[in-house]
Amino acid sequence: MTLLDQIDTPEDLKKLDRSQLPQLAREIRDNIVDVVSKNGGHLASSLGVVELTIAVHYVFDVPFDKVIWDVGHQAYAHKLLTGRREAFPTLRTLGGISGFPKVSESPYDAFTTGHSSTSVSAGYGISCARDIKGEDGKVISIIGDGSLTGGIAYEGLNQSGPSSRNHLVILNDNEMSIAKNVGALSSFLSRTFSAKYLQDLKGEFKKAMKALPKVGDDIYQFAKKTEESFKAFVTPGMLFEAFKFEYLGPIDGHNLEHLIDILENIKKLNKPVLLHVMSKKGMGYAPAEANPVYFHGVGAFEKETGNSMKAKPKAPSYTEVFGKSMVSLAESDKRIVAVTAAMPEGTGLTEFAARFPDRFFDVGIAEQHGVTFAAGMATEGMKPVVAIYSTFLQRAYDQILHDVCLDRHPVIFAVDRGGLVGEDGPTHHGLFDLAYLRPLPNMAIMAPADENELRRMLKTALDHDGPIAIRYPRGAGTGTAVDEAAPPLPFGKGALVREGKDLLLLAIGTSLATCMEAAEQLSQRGIEAAVINARFVKPLDKDLILTWAGTTGHVVTVEEHMKAGGFGSAVLELFSDEGLSNIATARVGIEDHFVEHGPREALCRRQGISTEGIVEASFRVLGQTQSVTTLAGDGR
Amino acid sequence: MTLLDQIDTPEDLKKLDRSQLPQLAREIRDNIVDVVSKNGGHLASSLGVVELTIAVHYVFDVPFDKVIWDVGHQAYAHKLLTGRREAFPTLRTLGGISGFPKVSESPYDAFTTGHSSTSVSAGYGISCARDIKGEDGKVISIIGDGSLTGGIAYEGLNQSGPSSRNHLVILNDNEMSIAKNVGALSSFLSRTFSAKYLQDLKGEFKKAMKALPKVGDDIYQFAKKTEESFKAFVTPGMLFEAFKFEYLGPIDGHNLEHLIDILENIKKLNKPVLLHVMSKKGMGYAPAEANPVYFHGVGAFEKETGNSMKAKPKAPSYTEVFGKSMVSLAESDKRIVAVTAAMPEGTGLTEFAARFPDRFFDVGIAEQHGVTFAAGMATEGMKPVVAIYSTFLQRAYDQILHDVCLDRHPVIFAVDRGGLVGEDGPTHHGLFDLAYLRPLPNMAIMAPADENELRRMLKTALDHDGPIAIRYPRGAGTGTAVDEAAPPLPFGKGALVREGKDLLLLAIGTSLATCMEAAEQLSQRGIEAAVINARFVKPLDKDLILTWAGTTGHVVTVEEHMKAGGFGSAVLELFSDEGLSNIATARVGIEDHFVEHGPREALCRRQGISTEGIVEASFRVLGQTQSVTTLAGDGR
Ligand SMILES: [Mg+2]
Ligand SMILES: [Mg+2]
Repeated sequence: MTLLDQIDTPEDLKKLDRSQLPQLAREIRDNIVDVVSKNGGHLASSLGVVELTIAVHYVFDVPFDKVIWDVGHQAYAHKLLTGRREAFPTLRTLGGISGFPKVSESPYDAFTTGHSSTSVSAGYGISCARDIKGEDGKVISIIGDGSLTGGIAYEGLNQSGPSSRNHLVILNDNEMSIAKNVGALSSFLSRTFSAKYLQDLKGEFKKAMKALPKVGDDIYQFAKKTEESFKAFVTPGMLFEAFKFEYLGPIDGHNLEHLIDILENIKKLNKPVLLHVMSKKGMGYAPAEANPVYFHGVGAFEKETGNSMKAKPKAPSYTEVFGKSMVSLAESDKRIVAVTAAMPEGTGLTEFAARFPDRFFDVGIAEQHGVTFAAGMATEGMKPVVAIYSTFLQRAYDQILHDVCLDRHPVIFAVDRGGLVGEDGPTHHGLFDLAYLRPLPNMAIMAPADENELRRMLKTALDHDGPIAIRYPRGAGTGTAVDEAAPPLPFGKGALVREGKDLLLLAIGTSLATCMEAAEQLSQRGIEAAVINARFVKPLDKDLILTWAGTTGHVVTVEEHMKAGGFGSAVLELFSDEGLSNIATARVGIEDHFVEHGPREALCRRQGISTEGIVEASFRVLGQTQSVTTLAGDGR
Repeated sequence: MTLLDQIDTPEDLKKLDRSQLPQLAREIRDNIVDVVSKNGGHLASSLGVVELTIAVHYVFDVPFDKVIWDVGHQAYAHKLLTGRREAFPTLRTLGGISGFPKVSESPYDAFTTGHSSTSVSAGYGISCARDIKGEDGKVISIIGDGSLTGGIAYEGLNQSGPSSRNHLVILNDNEMSIAKNVGALSSFLSRTFSAKYLQDLKGEFKKAMKALPKVGDDIYQFAKKTEESFKAFVTPGMLFEAFKFEYLGPIDGHNLEHLIDILENIKKLNKPVLLHVMSKKGMGYAPAEANPVYFHGVGAFEKETGNSMKAKPKAPSYTEVFGKSMVSLAESDKRIVAVTAAMPEGTGLTEFAARFPDRFFDVGIAEQHGVTFAAGMATEGMKPVVAIYSTFLQRAYDQILHDVCLDRHPVIFAVDRGGLVGEDGPTHHGLFDLAYLRPLPNMAIMAPADENELRRMLKTALDHDGPIAIRYPRGAGTGTAVDEAAPPLPFGKGALVREGKDLLLLAIGTSLATCMEAAEQLSQRGIEAAVINARFVKPLDKDLILTWAGTTGHVVTVEEHMKAGGFGSAVLELFSDEGLSNIATARVGIEDHFVEHGPREALCRRQGISTEGIVEASFRVLGQTQSVTTLAGDGR
C-alpha cells in the first residue's frame, strides 16, 4: 500500500511524519503523470506545485481554512489529497471529475476557477465574510506569476493589502527571473523566522529607520541611492509591500521542510501576507521539465517517453490555418499587427511572432488591455488582429464596446475556441460570444464553415473598415483545401448550399456540415430541406434568408452557442422586423444551462446540436403548419 | 478681447508669453464655471487640470503629439484650447459638443474616452503604431489617481514600462495623501532638472550602488533597512519604478512655471516616464473646492453661490429609493453586504455606508474585482448587493458569468442607470445589459416599472437563491408611494395592467408608463390594447404572455435597450420555442447604432421609445393581419 493510498482526507496526511512526505510527493507525481498520460490535461503546472500542495494541507486545515487555486489547472495534487484519489482516473472524462476546482464537486474546493487572476478577489471576499461573521480560519489564494499580469489580480491586491485582514496570498512563481543573490535570503527566511522573530525584526527596522540622516536638500539623492540599491536586491518584494502585504520569500517551492516551516510561521500572522514561492513547471517528470510549454495542456502521451499518443489529425486545425494565413497576409500588408493575451501557441501565432517580432504583441493575461491597446494602434492606421479565445474575450467586453465599436475602429477579433471546447468544460466553452457581440453597433460577426472560409474571411476582415469578429472552433478543420489565392468572401453574404422546397436549415459556422447530413436524412424521409451557410451573424444576408424562408415557410437555425440571444435569435428578429409572422421556426442550440466537460462530439450530441437534433427540430416546425392554418382559418 | 478669445488652436497658445498664462487660466476657469453652471457637467475635475492642460499644450504639439484624457470628463479646458471655444456653450446639449473627448468631434482628441483607466493602454497602442511606422511624436496619457485603481491601467503600465517606448503617463493626483517631506523633492525636481542632468544623476546612482557592501548573510537585514527607509520617503515612485517607468514628481499641478519646465525636460526623454502631478479638484472656484464630490458631476447652479438651480424633482430617484431600501432591509437581515465601485454617492449607498461600515465595501474603480469579491462573500452565506451602473457593469462581464453564475451564487446586481442616461451620452448609456445578461445560465433579470416595484424586487432578490439583477433607470421615479411593508414581487411573474382584445403591449421597466399612454391613444382610435408589465426579462412570465398574445394575436414589445438580444428578442424566442408562428410582432427599442448625448426624454423620443413610436409600431403589426390571413389562405 502506498502512502497516497492511505489518504482519504487531509487529516490522514497530517498523520504522516515529515520524513515521509518526499515519498508521498513522488507517488502523487507518478499518479498525475499516469492519469494525464491517458486522459490528457494540464500536466506541467500540477507537477510544479506538488510540494506546495502537500505543505498547505499539512499545515492548514482545509476546508475550515479555505484554499483558492487561481486558474485551477494546477489543482491535481489537491484533488488527490482531498477525497478524489479513486475518482482521479476519470479526470476530464465525460461524467468524471473536472480538471479544475469545482465547488459542486468537493467541499475542499472553496471557489470554482478556470479563468485566470480571480483568486485574490475571491479570497478577499471570503476573508471579509469570515470577519463579518466573527469566525476564524486562514484564507489562502494561490496564484501564479502569469496570473498576476491580469488586472483583476491587481485590483484584488489593492483592496486586500490595506485591509489588514487575515489573508495569505501565495505567489507560485515558475517563470519570473530572480537575481541569484536572493537565494541566500530565501533559505534564511524559511528556516529561522518564527512569527515572534518577524515581529522583533520589524521593531529593529523601525529603529534603524529613525536613525537615518535627517531629511534636507539632499533627500532626493539619498532616496535615489536607496532606491537603486533596493531594487537590485529585493525587486519582487517592492511591489507587494507597496500593496501593504507583508512580503516573504522567495523560497524554494520544492523544499518541503522550508515550505512547512514558513507556512507554520505564517499561520500565526493575522494579516495580509504574500509568500513568494519559486517552483519549476513540470518538476519531477523529465519530458515536462524539458518542454513545459508543450506539457502545459497536453493530450494523451506515452508515459515513458512523453511522446504524443494522439493520432495525427487528418486536417490542420482552424488555429493552424489562422496562424499560417496571418503570416502570408502580413507579408504583403504592413498594417497587420497581431495581439495575443499570453497565448501565442494556443492561438497559432508563434510563426507570426518569429517572422514579425515588431508587429507581434503578447500583452500577458490582460485581455482588457489587449483590446484597448489594439484600438490605440488602429487609430494610427494599423490593422490589429486580436486573437483571443471566445471564453477569455468575455474579459474585454467593455473594451470591445467602448474602445473599439464606439469609434468604429477596424480591429479584427480572431475568436478562437468558439463553441464547445470539450474536456476543459464549463469555464472554457465559448458559448456566449455571438450574444454578447451582436448588440454592439458597428460590429460585424462572421463564422466560417470550413478552414478555407476562415482564410477568406480573414481577407474580408482586412478589407472591412470597422470592427469585425471571426468566430471559429477548437480542433481540426474539415480537411477542405486552403486556397491562398481565393478572394475574400463578400461582406454580409451567405450562400445557398442545397436547394429544397419544404424547409430551410440555416447553419452558421461548423454546424453547416451537420445541417447537410440532416438534410440528407430528411430527404430519405421525403422532406426536401434547403441549406444556407449564413457565414455572417451580423449583418445577416437578409435577401437570401428571406427568399428561402418565404419559399419554404419553415426554418430551423443551428448554432453551437446559447439559444438566448444568438444566431437563431437574430433570425427571429429579422423575421419580426420584416413583418413575417407566418414562418414556423425552431432554433437548435444550447439550452439555458452550463455544459459539462467531456469530448466535444459527445457534448454536441447531448446538447442536440447533431443530425438527430436537427431532424427532430425539423419535424417539429413542419408539424406547426397545421396549427398555423387552423388558427388563421379562425378568421384572424 | 480676452486672451482666450485669441486662441483658436494650440499654436495660438504658444504665442503667449509665460507671464500671460495665469491670466489665461483664470479666463478658462471662468468660462468653464459659466457654461457648467447653465448646462451642468463635470466641474471639479476640469477645474483641477486647467494649468496642466495649458502646460501640455504650451509644450507639446497636439495633434502631432497625442494626448489621451483618461475618463475624459476633465477635458473641458482642452476643448476650449483646441478649436471648440465658440461651441463650448453647447456642451452636453442635444446636437452640441460632447462632455468627453471624442475622436469624431475633433482631430485634437486622440482617443474617445468616458470609462475609466483606458488611457495607458490606448496610449501605448498609439506609441507602438508610431514606432512601427518609424514616426515621431510624444504620446501622453493623462490619468487620475482614482483611475489607477482600475485593473486595465495596471495591465497597461505593466506592458508599457518595460517596452522602453516614448510614452509619457501623467498621473493627475488629487486625492492620494502624500507624505509632507516629498514637497521639497517636488520643487527641486521641477526647477532644476534638465534631461542631461537626469542622465548624469543616473550614472552617479549606478556608481553609488556598486560601492554598496558586498552581499552576504546580512543581506536580508540590509535590504529590509533600505526598504523601510525607502518607503518612508518615495512611496509613490516605488510602484511606478517597479513598472520600469522613470518616475518624476510629485509636482504642484497649479504651478505653471514648474509644469512647463518639467514638461520641457520630459520632452527630451525618449522612454516611458511617469510624471506625478498634485492638483486640487475644483481649484479656483470656491464652492467646488469646498465640495468637490458634489461638483464632480453637477446640474445647473447659480454661479455666484454654487447653489443648485434644479427644481427639486417631485419624486425621489430610483437611486434614492434603492439606497433607503438597502438601509431598512439591512437592519433586519445581517447577511446583506453592499459593494460599490467608487460610486457610493452615485449608487445611493452613502447612508448604508454610514450605518453599516463593516458591511459596506467600496472597491475603487474595479468592477471586475468587485463582482468576484462579492461571489467570494456569497460562498460564505452573505447576500452581496453589487450596485454598479449598467454601463460600468460591462467591465465585469466575465466575472458575472464565470464567478457568479456558474456556481449560482446568490449575488444581487443593482444595475442602476439602465437605459438612456442623457447628457453623458454614448459612453454612458446603459443599453446592453439585458442582452449581455440574458444568455447567462442561472441569471434572473428584473426591471421595475416604478419605485415601489424596485423596493419589492429588492425583497424578491433577497429571497432568491441565485444570481439576480434589478435594472432601473437614472432619474426620478414615477412618484408612486413606496410601501415598506409590501411583500416581495413573485418570482417570474408579470402583471396584466390593462385588458384589450386587439393587441398586446408588452412593457418592461419604465416603458410601462409609455405603453399605458399609447394604449389610451390607441383606444381613442378604436383599438383596444392589453398592457402587460413583464417585470421579469428572465424568466419571462410564460403563461401570462402566451395567454394574452394568443388572445390578441398581435404583440408589441417596448424596452429602453438595444433591439438586438434584448427583452423583445426574448419574447420572440418564447414564441418560437412554443411553436407560435402566427403572432404578429414588432419590437420597440434602440436600433443598431450608438445614441448621442442630450436630455433623456428627447433621446427617447428620437429613438421611437415614445407614445408615438409605440402607436406606430402597433399599427404596423395590426397591418400584418391581412397578409398573414392571405398567406395562410393560400393553403400553407
Ligand atoms: Mg507561471
Ligand atoms: Mg482623483
